[in-house]
Amino acid sequence: MKLATLKNGSRDGALIVVSRDLTRYLSAAMVAPTLQAALDNWDFAAPQLAALYQALNDGGAAEARPFDESQCHSPLPRAYQWADGSAYINHVELVRKARNAEVPASFYTDPLMYQGGSDSFVGPRDRIYALSEEWGIDLEAEVAVVTGDVKMGASDADAAKAIRLVMLVNDVSLRNLIPNELAKGFGFFNSKPASAFSPVAVTPDELGAHWTGGKLHLPLTVTLNHQPFGKPNAGEDMTFSFAQLVAHAARTRELCAGTIIGSGTVSNKQGGLHGSSIANGGVGYCCLAEVRMYETIEGGQPATGYLKFGDSVRIEMLDERGASIFGAIDQTVAHYREKG
Amino acid sequence: MKLATLKNGSRDGALIVVSRDLTRYLSAAMVAPTLQAALDNWDFAAPQLAALYQALNDGGAAEARPFDESQCHSPLPRAYQWADGSAYINHVELVRKARNAEVPASFYTDPLMYQGGSDSFVGPRDRIYALSEEWGIDLEAEVAVVTGDVKMGASDADAAKAIRLVMLVNDVSLRNLIPNELAKGFGFFNSKPASAFSPVAVTPDELGAHWTGGKLHLPLTVTLNHQPFGKPNAGEDMTFSFAQLVAHAARTRELCAGTIIGSGTVSNKQGGLHGSSIANGGVGYCCLAEVRMYETIEGGQPATGYLKFGDSVRIEMLDERGASIFGAIDQTVAHYREKG
Repeated sequence: MKLATLKNGSRDGALIVVSRDLTRYLSAAMVAPTLQAALDNWDFAAPQLAALYQALNDGGAAEARPFDESQCHSPLPRAYQWADGSAYINHVELVRKARNAEVPASFYTDPLMYQGGSDSFVGPRDRIYALSEEWGIDLEAEVAVVTGDVKMGASDADAAKAIRLVMLVNDVSLRNLIPNELAKGFGFFNSKPASAFSPVAVTPDELGAHWTGGKLHLPLTVTLNHQPFGKPNAGEDMTFSFAQLVAHAARTRELCAGTIIGSGTVSNKQGGLHGSSIANGGVGYCCLAEVRMYETIEGGQPATGYLKFGDSVRIEMLDERGASIFGAIDQTVAHYREKG
Repeated sequence: MKLATLKNGSRDGALIVVSRDLTRYLSAAMVAPTLQAALDNWDFAAPQLAALYQALNDGGAAEARPFDESQCHSPLPRAYQWADGSAYINHVELVRKARNAEVPASFYTDPLMYQGGSDSFVGPRDRIYALSEEWGIDLEAEVAVVTGDVKMGASDADAAKAIRLVMLVNDVSLRNLIPNELAKGFGFFNSKPASAFSPVAVTPDELGAHWTGGKLHLPLTVTLNHQPFGKPNAGEDMTFSFAQLVAHAARTRELCAGTIIGSGTVSNKQGGLHGSSIANGGVGYCCLAEVRMYETIEGGQPATGYLKFGDSVRIEMLDERGASIFGAIDQTVAHYREKG
């Protein structure tokens, strides 16, 4: 099934069930007021939400209303946990190669993961606010899952069973703040502002054969200022499955229902700068940093700039028939003073 | 006023108002079901909670019931954000000295802060669960504040105004997992399991003259296996005030009401190993790592072990008349299999 959260003036929005083709929705208020409430009591809520979804797709729900992605908040407007892996090691390999460093062998067996801020996500059609372009504003197009409760030390198999929903994410990063912050040794904080998630979150069964081995095997489409920028396959070159990422997160502590675990920037292995761009037949990129790393490796320094105020980013995933699965993240960068 | 959260079988517990002397409480259900709900709507909730608090202290609340700290969850059993500073630079100086490294000059002007997991805190009288003693289980006794909404780029003054509540925290750390995890470059994750907070959270005005300059000027009392272990003054040697820590957290993003910001392990500057222990007239320590650093600096290697299953930790703060302000965090370490 497909779930979303409509903005309604409250901090957590209103849970709705969305039709498979993203054209209509039904209120889920009678089942659970919010997505977090549904996740808190999933065994009770899921069958009822599934029944609403069935009625909606069968066309038998007279009270269904037109679905408008632009009225959505992120499925969880705020969450109790957002932890982002870095499962596409190709991205890490390029980062290291650009500064002539080796990737530690452990990176292929022990997932990289950082604890992200989850207190106030941005809606999928809301602006990316910053106080300065000098921060080096970058997108990071990723896939993410939402879990149920997970026990400490859960196996990969148990972690896989705890995956409730799948969605897309734009993990906005402030590249120019990262070097100094990571040098302090405590990981990202100021360099990772609020993320945005796709309008719709879907249950894994909804993805059919595209969801296998705890990975989502479809291209992730990224458009920058209305130009094709990336379309790597999220199922390829993913060193760690979502099951492994969730199990890693739960290694020393329990995870609460509603925990969001990200894949890290999707990145496919490609030859070099020229052939990797979409214009030259490649699958492109899910962040500007990746182009800049190719430029650095081949030309000694980056040539492509980061996002400027007014730039737009669109992230979407289409099924084999070209239909949008999650709806689109579509954001413009703006100065925070414009928020008013 | 003093607020707490009673366990009631739900994930978020029930908000109560506790008398100043921690002997009685009133339900706050008519104002807000949970502490997060009160923080979400603080301007509405705070005056009504204050009225309940007044009635309770005046003895005029016939429906008041006896308060039992052991029935409490952490004030926020789960939160949308927990970010922990490292404001007592003496702790950082000892860490560096123990490995013959310098403290970077920027550490005195740019706060260290990590994003912590906030999805499932432990109750103040609940056990600290781990799967292995080999993880190097340590306590970290700290002070923490809970904020209202904070704008991106807030000044220190605006950040100070956003501080709603003060509480104590045991930021459990898995010392033996830290070196490998920090070497990966993305900060703490597995090495920081669930934290526990004091039974009671108090408004800053409740602390009177002890709360000045955004710091809490009272000794933090730590007992290990019923023996005095630490009593450093939380107002001394704190390089960054809570206002500065909150402003740092908000530098590139908004903070949502209910954000918890920690001080880092409280640590006062002392001469050396011998004179720093309470037995020898010092103020002792708020974590085992600090004793071990003195031991390493003076003897070449640590001698004190980390916590074992069965060990107990008590963290409390007394006012000038010896009365407990926040109630006590009092926890025993146990294997996770005992949770059942």
